[in-house]
Amino acid sequence: MIPTPPIDVTGLDPITARVENNGPTAALVCALGDDVDDPLAWLRAHREHIDAALHGYGAVLLRGLPPEMSLFEEVVTLIGGRTEIGVNIDTSTEYRPDERIPMHNEDSHAASWPRLLFFMCETPAEWGGYTPIADSRSVFQSLPQDLLERFAHGVRYTRTYRDDLGLGWREAFQTDSRAKVERYCREHGMAFSWDGPRLLTSTTRPAWRDEPRSGARVWFNQANLFHLAALGDEVREALLEAFPERYLARNAHFGNGTPIPPEDLLRVEQTYDDCALTLPWHRGDLLIIVNMLMAHGRTPYRGARRIWVATA
Amino acid sequence: MIPTPPIDVTGLDPITARVENNGPTAALVCALGDDVDDPLAWLRAHREHIDAALHGYGAVLLRGLPPEMSLFEEVVTLIGGRTEIGVNIDTSTEYRPDERIPMHNEDSHAASWPRLLFFMCETPAEWGGYTPIADSRSVFQSLPQDLLERFAHGVRYTRTYRDDLGLGWREAFQTDSRAKVERYCREHGMAFSWDGPRLLTSTTRPAWRDEPRSGARVWFNQANLFHLAALGDEVREALLEAFPERYLARNAHFGNGTPIPPEDLLRVEQTYDDCALTLPWHRGDLLIIVNMLMAHGRTPYRGARRIWVATA
Repeated sequence: MIPTPPIDVTGLDPITARVENNGPTAALVCALGDDVDDPLAWLRAHREHIDAALHGYGAVLLRGLPPEMSLFEEVVTLIGGRTEIGVNIDTSTEYRPDERIPMHNEDSHAASWPRLLFFMCETPAEWGGYTPIADSRSVFQSLPQDLLERFAHGVRYTRTYRDDLGLGWREAFQTDSRAKVERYCREHGMAFSWDGPRLLTSTTRPAWRDEPRSGARVWFNQANLFHLAALGDEVREALLEAFPERYLARNAHFGNGTPIPPEDLLRVEQTYDDCALTLPWHRGDLLIIVNMLMAHGRTPYRGARRIWVATA
Repeated sequence: MIPTPPIDVTGLDPITARVENNGPTAALVCALGDDVDDPLAWLRAHREHIDAALHGYGAVLLRGLPPEMSLFEEVVTLIGGRTEIGVNIDTSTEYRPDERIPMHNEDSHAASWPRLLFFMCETPAEWGGYTPIADSRSVFQSLPQDLLERFAHGVRYTRTYRDDLGLGWREAFQTDSRAKVERYCREHGMAFSWDGPRLLTSTTRPAWRDEPRSGARVWFNQANLFHLAALGDEVREALLEAFPERYLARNAHFGNGTPIPPEDLLRVEQTYDDCALTLPWHRGDLLIIVNMLMAHGRTPYRGARRIWVATA
């Protein structure tokens, strides 16, 4: 089902490397462990196969590394091809531990996005806290034609920044100048309007894109995160009682401005679920994904959980 | 979230044994591998902890065993406490490889059911073919109160056996005698009626039960497998065009005979999905589950897949 030719990983020791494949989504899993004294040297020696698997499947999971930040940075530099990286250690503040983070491609609602994502497990959660992945090619191919037709206009993302609740525009844009905000919006293709203390922005982006390296068409939007339906029933009802829908912090419509039916979002979520491959975190795991080929999410969890995240 | 006290597995080597826990569902995973020369001796030595984990979590996965039928039988005998076992090697004939088998507890629609299920992986599928498990206590606790109230009358399972299509009553009951069929139905609490060449049977069972050893309440029915909604859209429409609903090979209603709304089945399926823990099959894996504590299913797959199954 994965729309790629088989990847040649025959150069890798079959004891060390195997492909975990649920049909729609696959990842190369390399268990380095005690057999590999120097993980960086191993990665350099097998660089060609790792790259082939990464760009073929979209995901490579290295297991049994020493969970050291310095090693993580070196791997990011080696595979990501950059010397500057930012490592985000903090837990996401938008989602509580007992909430799932829906499947998404990083910044797919934006004008630009990271090429690669790196996750390293320093401490797995007491339970849960997995990072399921789903092949965005398979997601696109699994969605019904009539849904794709409705999404052909793309997705219109709207945000309301207000200073009295949630993220205000001063904080979000790191300025007190409305003129600077307006310039930023114009430069980034964002429509905007002022409504008293509020800033309302709107951008329209494609619902799918073609991954440049493979040419494969991928489902690549965050309608499921932005749409009203992504809020829990209780939160949504409380918010809609408190103020009109256009003042919601985030929302999504079809690109032509018409509402996205909740059933379409449900279908997208179900398709993500059907495609998702979940490989539980162990201490010392390092997951690399190609952001355009692979969506990711997070399951609910409890306990201390330290997953380092870097982008390239 | 798992409604059991923590299980004491401190007597097990932490390198060998760890608990995989997604919140609603947990399993003890023991990687025996090369360190353990004699898996049966290891099991005997750690019998107490294995039993505690099996009856606490509901599932134990042993990894790295030699995939030999004789060893499988010995493990089944040791843990299952029986000397007679039937090993089912064949792929299920009811479900094609490209279909998923919905989550269910074995024979939970029947008057009796196996206590333990054993699965051993001789050959993993080319892709997919996983056996997700879901804690039936968590499933019960996750279902909304109004749904539970609707299921308070139990589930009425209906079957139609016909000789011209699908499984006929002669084959199902292994007899040509209508009188013998009627006796069997009376002895097993099944209502029945004859309709020309057809035999229609009906049994009503609880939707949940209390697991005897722990007293825990578990979701324990096969409404999601029997209900019309379990058929794909195309198959369902084709069948309903061909003959009336009462002649469907299988169907489920609430215990009082009223229809189960498709939304309720969807909610049950989503709850199973939310609770499910999926541990991909490797050659030499042996999974043991307590049938009343843990539902199981099968994801779609391709390629040769040989998972031995035994019950006790």
